[in-house]
Amino acid sequence: MTLKIALAQTNFLVGDIAANVDNIARAAIHARDELGADMIVFPELTITGYPAEDLLLRADFISAANNALYQLADRVDGIALVVGFPERDGDTLYNSAVVLHQGAILACYRKRVLPNYGVFDEQRYFTAGNQSCVFEFNGTFIGLTVCEDVWRSGIIEDNKEAGAELLLTLNASPFNSGKIHQREAVICSQVKAAQIPLVYVNQTGGQDELIFDGASFVVDANGDIVFRAAEFKEQISVVEFDGNKPIKTSCAPLYVEIASEYQALVLGIKDYVRKNGFQGAILGLSGGIDSALVLALAVDALGADKVEAVLLPSRYTQDMSNEDALLEAKALGIKYHIIPIEPAVNAFTGMLADIFVGTAKDATEENIQARCRGVVLMALSNKQGKLLLTTGNKSEMSVGYATLYGDMSGGFAPIKDVPKLLVYRLARYRNTLSPVIPERVIIRPPSAELAPDQIDADSLPPYELLDPILECYIEKDQSAEQIIAAGFSREDVARAISLVDRNEYKRRQSPPGIRITARAFGRDRRYPITSGYKGI
Amino acid sequence: MTLKIALAQTNFLVGDIAANVDNIARAAIHARDELGADMIVFPELTITGYPAEDLLLRADFISAANNALYQLADRVDGIALVVGFPERDGDTLYNSAVVLHQGAILACYRKRVLPNYGVFDEQRYFTAGNQSCVFEFNGTFIGLTVCEDVWRSGIIEDNKEAGAELLLTLNASPFNSGKIHQREAVICSQVKAAQIPLVYVNQTGGQDELIFDGASFVVDANGDIVFRAAEFKEQISVVEFDGNKPIKTSCAPLYVEIASEYQALVLGIKDYVRKNGFQGAILGLSGGIDSALVLALAVDALGADKVEAVLLPSRYTQDMSNEDALLEAKALGIKYHIIPIEPAVNAFTGMLADIFVGTAKDATEENIQARCRGVVLMALSNKQGKLLLTTGNKSEMSVGYATLYGDMSGGFAPIKDVPKLLVYRLARYRNTLSPVIPERVIIRPPSAELAPDQIDADSLPPYELLDPILECYIEKDQSAEQIIAAGFSREDVARAISLVDRNEYKRRQSPPGIRITARAFGRDRRYPITSGYKGI
Repeated sequence: MTLKIALAQTNFLVGDIAANVDNIARAAIHARDELGADMIVFPELTITGYPAEDLLLRADFISAANNALYQLADRVDGIALVVGFPERDGDTLYNSAVVLHQGAILACYRKRVLPNYGVFDEQRYFTAGNQSCVFEFNGTFIGLTVCEDVWRSGIIEDNKEAGAELLLTLNASPFNSGKIHQREAVICSQVKAAQIPLVYVNQTGGQDELIFDGASFVVDANGDIVFRAAEFKEQISVVEFDGNKPIKTSCAPLYVEIASEYQALVLGIKDYVRKNGFQGAILGLSGGIDSALVLALAVDALGADKVEAVLLPSRYTQDMSNEDALLEAKALGIKYHIIPIEPAVNAFTGMLADIFVGTAKDATEENIQARCRGVVLMALSNKQGKLLLTTGNKSEMSVGYATLYGDMSGGFAPIKDVPKLLVYRLARYRNTLSPVIPERVIIRPPSAELAPDQIDADSLPPYELLDPILECYIEKDQSAEQIIAAGFSREDVARAISLVDRNEYKRRQSPPGIRITARAFGRDRRYPITSGYKGI
Repeated sequence: MTLKIALAQTNFLVGDIAANVDNIARAAIHARDELGADMIVFPELTITGYPAEDLLLRADFISAANNALYQLADRVDGIALVVGFPERDGDTLYNSAVVLHQGAILACYRKRVLPNYGVFDEQRYFTAGNQSCVFEFNGTFIGLTVCEDVWRSGIIEDNKEAGAELLLTLNASPFNSGKIHQREAVICSQVKAAQIPLVYVNQTGGQDELIFDGASFVVDANGDIVFRAAEFKEQISVVEFDGNKPIKTSCAPLYVEIASEYQALVLGIKDYVRKNGFQGAILGLSGGIDSALVLALAVDALGADKVEAVLLPSRYTQDMSNEDALLEAKALGIKYHIIPIEPAVNAFTGMLADIFVGTAKDATEENIQARCRGVVLMALSNKQGKLLLTTGNKSEMSVGYATLYGDMSGGFAPIKDVPKLLVYRLARYRNTLSPVIPERVIIRPPSAELAPDQIDADSLPPYELLDPILECYIEKDQSAEQIIAAGFSREDVARAISLVDRNEYKRRQSPPGIRITARAFGRDRRYPITSGYKGI
């Protein structure tokens, strides 16, 4: 008997239960009527979106989700819906997948493996289920699983032992660079070992710091991918099964790594702006590489008409910086303003003159400049309802080479998880699509331009050394001795690590940004500010 | 046989393993030599301090903690040490309590109940143990437990069944208002039911947002407290046991609620400044109640010579505000500056004039004023290495009645978890100790003074209504309908809730503050910014 299963790779708004249910019903009707599907499978916790975080602690929210799910059962017939929802049973909450068919619940599975590491806090909310769930549909025995379940060995085998001939997996699997290869490798190898085909449905879209990359797929019993949906966009596709055997169809090609990183950043900006109802975005354009990249990303995400740049030169801004910033703005066709910050800097200098008399110039004076820019940018953001994009990169965020309430101002920091060397690679990648970032911006030595002839290399190890040290320390939790043993100098390692250690307070107040590495700041890395730990 | 047990209510620095081990050894020698103790019991995870958060994911940190523990066994003899540490066993980490005696490990217990709610993330780091641990010492059979264990019914009984005649509990139990009564009630009733005496040792001190209140105690088999250590300070005390029966000794009296809240705030400021190595603290003094209270707290925490205030008047600042601010500064004997913000406000107004031409005045212009104050305060903080204290209260933080990078600037926000009505009560309480806050500051209508004749009540429901609505919504997770049913108007509830819902982005960038309620912002309340959930 043939079975047509639709994979609904959706991009829902977390918390908007009513809209999500409408979209589920609409997708199901489309799959039934236009695609001839017998069944449609949605991502993990479809009804609420993922991750709903502490909304899951609200009784009203959970009631609404449960009511919506049970009403959905009556809303669409002629197709089975496989939907995720936070199932309340007495005082207990489960992360469940349910099969709705002809007004009834055909099966309900409770996720057994609840991730509680990295960005995941599922044990804060849910109780783990403890058994497989296999149901018969159109003559095929189908097992239900949810996300982390199929990463853990044992669960797929359990399903097979329970009689499953085909597995469905509902997922909310966040992107990081290279994740898709890891995901497909892990799951295909488990499938191959168990010899049971699997339908993997992932959500897509940006949700605060997380990007969900979609790329839903179907694996046959040999572990070969016979269908793959596109990355980073909504898509409803149908795959036909002969019994439990999927019939090979189209596989969307995967982006190369640099393109996937770029697409993730574009989607992250687009969804943060759209889902939070901003009129567009603004940013400060310095003539440096970071703001040049953020501008290009923002224009690619929102369109030139929704993006506005502000040049905020000071006495330390070199002519070439202004020239390059203007070239970028013009190349992308965006609106821009030029607002020199000297009047405000002079005002503060005057106001503080009596108190600061006799003190040496230090970072204080540099911070004042950065904060004057922050005030102007926030004023423009406030007045126009446009999101201020913060342009700092991960290398800066790591070592605290940024001014709190200055260049760290903003509602969203697109490249907060992008190390400086990757900023350069992404800029070069973007220029291969069309030349928008002047070559000089890419090749000149990076500078904060907060003091005469200042360059980053005065304060930090060169990025060619700094970035790999930071990756070892932050993403891989390596010790200083391990990093030194890998060939870096003790001096560079000590400088980098001690800066990371003592700048936790800045990161705590930084805007959210898009996670593209295996460990971002934010929910992903929870360090105490008050700490006697010294990495070196 | 008599047994003298010392309760070591310590205040350690999270992450400073070497110093913590030195302090453990010193305390043990003191207890042995000066107090004649046979055994000394320390708080949960003594070696690392609590909570060490993601430091616990670092292999080097865990190695250091394990090495330190095993070395400690050889360092002090003649007294048994009961110490908490993150025990590594292969790839698994346990939250363990170990008994060190005469250079050997006499017993090791792995915490069985790992809290993963509220501010706790223990399942992120630890695997739960699965058995009781009873050891014999001086003829008495003693059971080991750790914190959450003794809140969960069953564990104490298990220990009794395993032969324990006396229980030791190592704790890191954070303060919130009223918590001590809840803690003693829960534990004494469990002890009474099981008829087994218990020694409860809690840590003390401030650690980022958390306050640990100490108040360690000993309960006899009838559930009566026969010893209690002081709240909010370090103390090493000895209690004598006849076999397993504690001999009644002194019980430190408990603070009344308002005094405990005040003490918690003082300790929080003191430890944040001390443990992070600041030279002192500064704050903006407006003449309003919030900054008046924060100033009094800071002086009580740090001493008048370590605190500096800045008056930052604008054209909207009333004379009485300046007068009252000066009275406060003088009453507390602190250094202060007066820096009118008009020059900076005028500079920004001029810089933005062309762009803002034709637009109506709105919150943008108010925010500019608040941000000019932020720039000045941060400059003083940067130049002097003094911590800028943010003076906003919980009511403001809840509804977003504060300016990001303006009055929200600062490294630490002492009253961030103090609702406005409690701000008043704390101010009146402080004045009972000595009059430092002018009566007019307490009785005048609160105002942000960012526009002519502005008062808070123009924008918000009166605090007498707002605060209880916020408590129901934020601390109790009640729905709008529940709150309305409790007697509040739909209009007030709708206004309050919708403001809470849409200001998550501000809270995400707010400085850490001291948790004194059952649910603070920060680690305690993890809401998505991007959210379609509408509380009403």
